[in-house]
Amino acid sequence: MADRFGSPLPQPLFDRLTIVGVGLIGSSLLRAARQRNLAARLVAVDASEAVCARVREIGIADEVTSDACEGVRGADLVILCTPVAAIEIVARDVAQHLAPGSILSDVGSVKGAVVAGVQPHLPATVHFIPAHPVAGTEYSGPDSGFSTLFVDRWCILTPPEGTDAKAVEKLQTFWSEVGSNVEIMTPAHHDLVLAITSHVPHLIAYNIVGTAADLEEVTQSEVIKFSAGGFRDFTRIAASDPTMWRDIFLNNRDAVLEMLGRFNEDLAALQRMIRWGDGQGLFDLFTRTRAIRRSIIAQGQETPAPDFGRRSTPSSDQ
Amino acid sequence: MADRFGSPLPQPLFDRLTIVGVGLIGSSLLRAARQRNLAARLVAVDASEAVCARVREIGIADEVTSDACEGVRGADLVILCTPVAAIEIVARDVAQHLAPGSILSDVGSVKGAVVAGVQPHLPATVHFIPAHPVAGTEYSGPDSGFSTLFVDRWCILTPPEGTDAKAVEKLQTFWSEVGSNVEIMTPAHHDLVLAITSHVPHLIAYNIVGTAADLEEVTQSEVIKFSAGGFRDFTRIAASDPTMWRDIFLNNRDAVLEMLGRFNEDLAALQRMIRWGDGQGLFDLFTRTRAIRRSIIAQGQETPAPDFGRRSTPSSDQ
Repeated sequence: MADRFGSPLPQPLFDRLTIVGVGLIGSSLLRAARQRNLAARLVAVDASEAVCARVREIGIADEVTSDACEGVRGADLVILCTPVAAIEIVARDVAQHLAPGSILSDVGSVKGAVVAGVQPHLPATVHFIPAHPVAGTEYSGPDSGFSTLFVDRWCILTPPEGTDAKAVEKLQTFWSEVGSNVEIMTPAHHDLVLAITSHVPHLIAYNIVGTAADLEEVTQSEVIKFSAGGFRDFTRIAASDPTMWRDIFLNNRDAVLEMLGRFNEDLAALQRMIRWGDGQGLFDLFTRTRAIRRSIIAQGQETPAPDFGRRSTPSSDQ
Repeated sequence: MADRFGSPLPQPLFDRLTIVGVGLIGSSLLRAARQRNLAARLVAVDASEAVCARVREIGIADEVTSDACEGVRGADLVILCTPVAAIEIVARDVAQHLAPGSILSDVGSVKGAVVAGVQPHLPATVHFIPAHPVAGTEYSGPDSGFSTLFVDRWCILTPPEGTDAKAVEKLQTFWSEVGSNVEIMTPAHHDLVLAITSHVPHLIAYNIVGTAADLEEVTQSEVIKFSAGGFRDFTRIAASDPTMWRDIFLNNRDAVLEMLGRFNEDLAALQRMIRWGDGQGLFDLFTRTRAIRRSIIAQGQETPAPDFGRRSTPSSDQ
């Protein structure tokens, strides 16, 4: 990790970086940019005065304002880090204040709707390059960020056709410098990939936690006590920011419903195996799924520590 | 934790403890029993000669044998730690070799089927007290165990009506000594509680991993790369032992299908909210589910560390 997240650059990549929306992702970007000297000046914008006050307190930006138009002025890189539904609104509001030749990007978990919502508002002199760092935790707000959040994670860029290659390259460098691997794809493919690797997993996690909370035969106290049997794993992603996730489902509806359809078909088949006692069918699936985790660990996207390393399991312990 | 898992007892609780099936749970029990001096003599039984050889190598038992009848002879506590389907078979095989007055227990994740399968074979002189420690990791085999696995976890006992109170108390003490909280309930209630806190969560985890593996529009390599969006969490429990989990679903069929029915109803409602753009409904559910995780953390069943503490997120980091 030290190699991937080294010493500060001798020269900043950007003159003025403006982050709009200082939550987990925005505040992590400010911290990483400061640490790596990615911009000469860091500007933080948040609609909430309370968040602005907190950002001033923790001192992760050089300038802090609740006025997005003022914040983006003169910036050569603006990254919108608000929930998805707010991205279009902010982009429309600041469009005429963006510097000619600047890059406008975002970190939204949905890309098709963002492109459709933002692009029509922008002057032709601005390079619009949507992005999505696939990284996060279940916490939110400016205090939850940390500079190494993006290390060894993937960041997906979805530049519209004809985007200036140099601008794309510069944004790619920015994400590499915060520790990420970068991949380029179309917005539509992004939305399909994320529907299965992120959106549907969140949906079924929210759903099972809701189901468990509503039971009458099993008390909430029992659900909590015996959650170490597997349930508690799901509560982590079901503790993610409600606004952010509401927006994701509303803005990636088609891909989510498509992937959810596949999930439901497969679950119906599994349900039938249980009903009819098809032990071999169950065993075959449960063996196949093991291999996928091994690949995820081998590719550095997951820890091999038992139980996510939740607590120490000393290997010398007998 | 030091308080819950203190120094060895001055006097062992049992003379001879036999563990049948030396996987994650069995080997953890042997390690914990040795460390806390819970039995004067530890006997390990496993049907696999390879496992027996490994258990001899790592030295976590005083005697190791693949012959269960020989292993249980003279033991005052026998705990069956095999997959659920094997529990009945082993119990039937060893029944006539169990010492009069001894306790026979197990650690199966299903209790109704175990009671029905085991009880008819046992002589009246043996105290049968089914148990289920709600603890584990995604790893299996004798090397995966560790002595603190049961610390701060719950162990559920389901003694049949009329079971000798002293025997129940003694087994309760045994589980307290390995660090667990003990709760007593009926087998039927156990199976319902675990269906929602463990079995259905495992089923949907196995299912989504299977769904993702079978897609054509999204490659396996993409699923792996972008798994940090949420998917990788599910791969942990979908990497659990296939035999163990096949047996659980076949032996807790009714409760699993019942709870799966509730899950499906709720998921259909959620699907409809997405289709019709009911943002308020989504937001309300996503807010409710946050509270449950807070309770699980407050009751010591989960870490508050972001991302399960998968990697360090220094709070001083700016």
